[in-house]
Amino acid sequence: MSVAEEIAKNARYASTILKAAERGAREEALSRIWEELKSAKEAILEANAQDMRDAEVLLLERKLSASIVKRLDLSRPGKYDDMLQGIQDVLRLEDPVGKITLARHLDYDLELYRVSCPVGVLLVIFEARPEVIANITALAIKSGNAVILKGGKESARSFRAISHAISTALSNTKIPTNAVQLVASREEVSALLAQDRYIDMVIPRGSNALVRSIKDNTKIPVLGHADGLCSIYLHEDAPAELAAKVVLDSKIGYPAACNAVETLLVHEKAITSVLPCVSQALADANVQLRCDDQCLSALSSMNVNATRADDADYDTEFLDLVLAVKTVKNVQEAIQHINEHGSGHTDCIITNSEETSRQFMAGVDSAGTFWNCSTRFADGFRYGFGAEVGISTNKIHARGPVGLDGIMIYQYQVKGNGNIVADYTSGRRKFLHTDILT
Amino acid sequence: MSVAEEIAKNARYASTILKAAERGAREEALSRIWEELKSAKEAILEANAQDMRDAEVLLLERKLSASIVKRLDLSRPGKYDDMLQGIQDVLRLEDPVGKITLARHLDYDLELYRVSCPVGVLLVIFEARPEVIANITALAIKSGNAVILKGGKESARSFRAISHAISTALSNTKIPTNAVQLVASREEVSALLAQDRYIDMVIPRGSNALVRSIKDNTKIPVLGHADGLCSIYLHEDAPAELAAKVVLDSKIGYPAACNAVETLLVHEKAITSVLPCVSQALADANVQLRCDDQCLSALSSMNVNATRADDADYDTEFLDLVLAVKTVKNVQEAIQHINEHGSGHTDCIITNSEETSRQFMAGVDSAGTFWNCSTRFADGFRYGFGAEVGISTNKIHARGPVGLDGIMIYQYQVKGNGNIVADYTSGRRKFLHTDILT
Repeated sequence: MSVAEEIAKNARYASTILKAAERGAREEALSRIWEELKSAKEAILEANAQDMRDAEVLLLERKLSASIVKRLDLSRPGKYDDMLQGIQDVLRLEDPVGKITLARHLDYDLELYRVSCPVGVLLVIFEARPEVIANITALAIKSGNAVILKGGKESARSFRAISHAISTALSNTKIPTNAVQLVASREEVSALLAQDRYIDMVIPRGSNALVRSIKDNTKIPVLGHADGLCSIYLHEDAPAELAAKVVLDSKIGYPAACNAVETLLVHEKAITSVLPCVSQALADANVQLRCDDQCLSALSSMNVNATRADDADYDTEFLDLVLAVKTVKNVQEAIQHINEHGSGHTDCIITNSEETSRQFMAGVDSAGTFWNCSTRFADGFRYGFGAEVGISTNKIHARGPVGLDGIMIYQYQVKGNGNIVADYTSGRRKFLHTDILT
Repeated sequence: MSVAEEIAKNARYASTILKAAERGAREEALSRIWEELKSAKEAILEANAQDMRDAEVLLLERKLSASIVKRLDLSRPGKYDDMLQGIQDVLRLEDPVGKITLARHLDYDLELYRVSCPVGVLLVIFEARPEVIANITALAIKSGNAVILKGGKESARSFRAISHAISTALSNTKIPTNAVQLVASREEVSALLAQDRYIDMVIPRGSNALVRSIKDNTKIPVLGHADGLCSIYLHEDAPAELAAKVVLDSKIGYPAACNAVETLLVHEKAITSVLPCVSQALADANVQLRCDDQCLSALSSMNVNATRADDADYDTEFLDLVLAVKTVKNVQEAIQHINEHGSGHTDCIITNSEETSRQFMAGVDSAGTFWNCSTRFADGFRYGFGAEVGISTNKIHARGPVGLDGIMIYQYQVKGNGNIVADYTSGRRKFLHTDILT
């Protein structure tokens, strides 16, 4: 048996104990982890400082990017306490296990229940952020899922220290320590991605490139998104100032975010009435525009940074202060452009017409369809989910910002008194199919 | 562009129209299909008769099995009318599109809705049963999903005739004809399975071998189950007559069914008290037993067909009047055996103890966990779902018998008045996160 298979098999076995654990046992384990991470703060920060020293050497040698080094640092003011607070926040969420979502009498003495339960075993693959371990561990134990955490090699010492604290904490609880396994970076990701017999879901937390490479190399369902190519469509009646405000917020707040806008679609009648005001606001914020001919000529007399777009610009997630701009004939053409070129993340229409907004929302095949507000609201915390596992552009299971619900599934439980199917196929008995009031 | 890609792309485009279609338009299309299939009955049965003549030749040449030929036959009394009735039944189900499952004020003037919508494009691959076309078409159009149907070559003429009727019907409605595409058997399945950019879900309807080969050859999520290795565990306090009745029904009603029992686990204290009565009932129904040593010796004085089991028997879906029997020390060992050797379909405990049943149901990681009733209740119609897309042993999206819900997902809609995220990150405004009463 390979190391990866053993890890996965152990996780599977731990998950069958964890999934049956009472709420009290799961909460107790989370509290112990919180306490242990609190008391191990010094040791963990010391391990992190060693990782940082190595990373800074690699940064000088240009073998590591500044943003990775920044994400690695656990010592920034407030960061460690935020990590601890995150565990408390998850602890306080409603218990997602054992919720009855359907209760039905199949017959007077035969009951059907649909009961929420954890998916099983999660594999979380992440890059430099060590605090993800605490976050994901909290979500996993709260929801009764076992988890295998695979981090980047830059943070190996931080991981080991955090991992040690979590194992120590779990060893004094009813939750098996194999419920949370940290995998040293020497193990191959690909070997873990091949364990589809034992692992139920992969959650990548990192760059688009990481997510894409994982999606391409596993049969296990992947929860997440590779791309976030969001569009805003300005309808012919779009109020110019509202449009400018929303487009600006969607672009400049955090241009590298997956919910930032990348393409602006403009109704041909809005090119002269709405686009100039929006473009001026963008230009003032140093946003470069890549325009088609129609938009470009409408902006020619203005002092904006606008150049001619090529086809690839409409398929590009710039993640920067760059915006592709394109004319469309009507809302149908906007919908079609988004369904063909978008990534199914979040798309928005600016219009005064409720009827047109409804058409747009029904036609656009994305996880989020917005009307007159910033695309950057697409976020689990902003939606009020209390915890965010990730944002999914999948078409099944969980879509959009995913909270604890996204790592849950359900089980059917049927309770009888010796009932047999032959009684129903023969017509001796008839199904009742009435709801049980719960 | 390959033929498969063109089919898939056309389906995707049709799906964006179909998903936005009003309920009335979808229902109208289904009614037209029903009428057209009704009036084309003679032509369709004639095409089917030709398929049958060819199949009977192949049967004589032993190139086709009798069961396939039987499933191919649409002319059996009542079969065609049942097919038509099935469309009416689906038509009468509640509309699954546009249900609001979450409504929340993010702020006084910013609303979040989670709205049910179709998954998108389904690829249904099936073997000899031509009536599946009508059934799946009804489910797809009702739910707003576009569908590509790929059938076996034995029923090519029947498919063409049914396909012609469906296209004729759709051509007079608001639903694009590409919403339902039938693929001639000359097209390669593998080329369709590669269209993960356009196809959202594969639903195989056929043998375990078909399902397994599809799961192994696509990146598209597959809804279904390859195996149905169901177990029943007899606890030490299992009432013998109830146990015999339930085990018998689970085994003999339809031994080839995926929800038939294949393994009987017996608490060591129940070997002498419960097993003999159960074994006698099974022997009377000509069921062969494959037993471990303990069970075998307990049955040695009885007139039952019992032989020694080998390890493989506990991993075998016999689909026949054969049952593997094994001793376990306690409920924990039963749970562990099922989680290791079962297929996650349906497993049952026979006991008088509610506490032990609860332990079993929480510990067994299967789509269905039953207490004191036949495993054969695991079925969408018996659960009262009104329609069955299939039975899923997946751990995500949909599990167990899957009704219309299983081909739906949701979309988040956010409706604002020019709201921007900067107002909330700066602290100027605060999220409300209160439910909207719908």
